[in-house]
Amino acid sequence: MNKGILVVVSGFSGAGKGTVMKALLEKYDNYALSVSVTTRNPRPGETEGKEYFFRTREEFGKLIEEDALIEYAQYVENFYGTPRAYVEQQLAAGKDVILEIEIQGAMKVKEKLPEALLVFITPPSMEELKKRLIGRGTETMDVIQSRIARAHEEAQGMEDYDYLVLNDQLEECVERMHQIIQSEHYRMSRNQEFIQKIKGEIL
Amino acid sequence: MNKGILVVVSGFSGAGKGTVMKALLEKYDNYALSVSVTTRNPRPGETEGKEYFFRTREEFGKLIEEDALIEYAQYVENFYGTPRAYVEQQLAAGKDVILEIEIQGAMKVKEKLPEALLVFITPPSMEELKKRLIGRGTETMDVIQSRIARAHEEAQGMEDYDYLVLNDQLEECVERMHQIIQSEHYRMSRNQEFIQKIKGEIL
Repeated sequence: MNKGILVVVSGFSGAGKGTVMKALLEKYDNYALSVSVTTRNPRPGETEGKEYFFRTREEFGKLIEEDALIEYAQYVENFYGTPRAYVEQQLAAGKDVILEIEIQGAMKVKEKLPEALLVFITPPSMEELKKRLIGRGTETMDVIQSRIARAHEEAQGMEDYDYLVLNDQLEECVERMHQIIQSEHYRMSRNQEFIQKIKGEIL
Repeated sequence: MNKGILVVVSGFSGAGKGTVMKALLEKYDNYALSVSVTTRNPRPGETEGKEYFFRTREEFGKLIEEDALIEYAQYVENFYGTPRAYVEQQLAAGKDVILEIEIQGAMKVKEKLPEALLVFITPPSMEELKKRLIGRGTETMDVIQSRIARAHEEAQGMEDYDYLVLNDQLEECVERMHQIIQSEHYRMSRNQEFIQKIKGEIL
C-alpha cells in the first residue's frame, strides 16, 4: 500500500476547485501538486515552477518528442501539458499527486494511466452553479453564454469521472476529497502485491 | 446521495470480521446489519432474528419460490439465505446495509446487485493468518488442513472484491471500513440523479 495515486481533478468553472486543492495540500502532507508546462507567456505575478513551467514552442515540441508529457493539449494559441518525470517520482515516493486539468486532458490521462483516479467537483446545486456562471450582474451576455456552453460541455464529460464531490462548505469538501483519495488506496486493484504474496504463501 | 449502499463483507477465517462489524455498528448509526435466514437448528444462546432467522426447509423453499431471498446457498445439510425485504427497506431508508457472507454468496449478490460494495477483510500478514489458521497448538492436523484449504479457496476469490481491508488494529480497521463505505457514496455511478438534474438544468 505504498505507491501514490494520481488524482485528476476537474470541475465546473466556479466550482472552487483551486481553493479546495490549495486547502487540501496545506492540511495534509501526503499530497504533491503537479505543475503543468505551457507555451503561453507568464502573466504578472506568475512564477516559473509555481503556476506553470514556461517553455518555448520549440522546447515544448521536444518534450512531446521525448514522451516527457503524460498528456498535452492545445487551447487557442497555446500548448499545455503534464510533465511525466515529476509525477512518476512523487508517485514512487508514495505521494498522491493532484493534477488539476480540463476534461479533455483528464480523459487522455485515464487512457494512458487507467489507475488514475478522476474526481469531478461541482457546486451543490444548479442555482448555485448558475449564480456563479452569471456572475454578479457585471458580466456581458457573451461571457455568460460562453460559460454556460462550457458548463454544458463539462457536464457531458462528468460521468466518465470516478467520483463526484460537492463543494458546499470548503472544510467539508476538503475532508471528503481526502477520505475519498485515502480510501482508494484500499481498492483491491491497487493491492496486487499483497494479494500475490498472500496467495503464494497460503499454499 | 440518499440511498444506502449494500456492503458485502467477507474475509479469511480468523480475520476478525465479526468483531470489526460489531464495532462498526456500535460506533455509527448509519448502518444496519442484514440477518440471514437458515434451516439449521439454533445453537444454545442463539436468538431468533439476532444471529439468524430460523426456518424449516419447507418455509425456506417458499422464500426461494417467492423470490424473497437476494441469494441463498447450501452448506452441508443446511440452507442459508439473505432476506430481500429487510435489505431493501433499510437501503431505501438511507442505511448502509452490512451483509457478512461467504465468497460464493458474495459473488451471487454482486451478480444480482452490481451496485453492491464488496469488502474483503484480511489479517495484516501471512504469518498472522497462519498463526490464526493453525490455532494455539490445540488443533488436529485435520482441522488445520481444512482451514488452509478454505483460506486457499478464499484467496482465489478475493480479487473479485472491491476493497481490501487489513485488520491490524481493531479501532483503525473500523475507521477504515467506515471511510471506505462513506466515500463510496460519492462514486459517480451512485449519483445518477444529481447528474441528470444538473445536465437538464444547464441547458
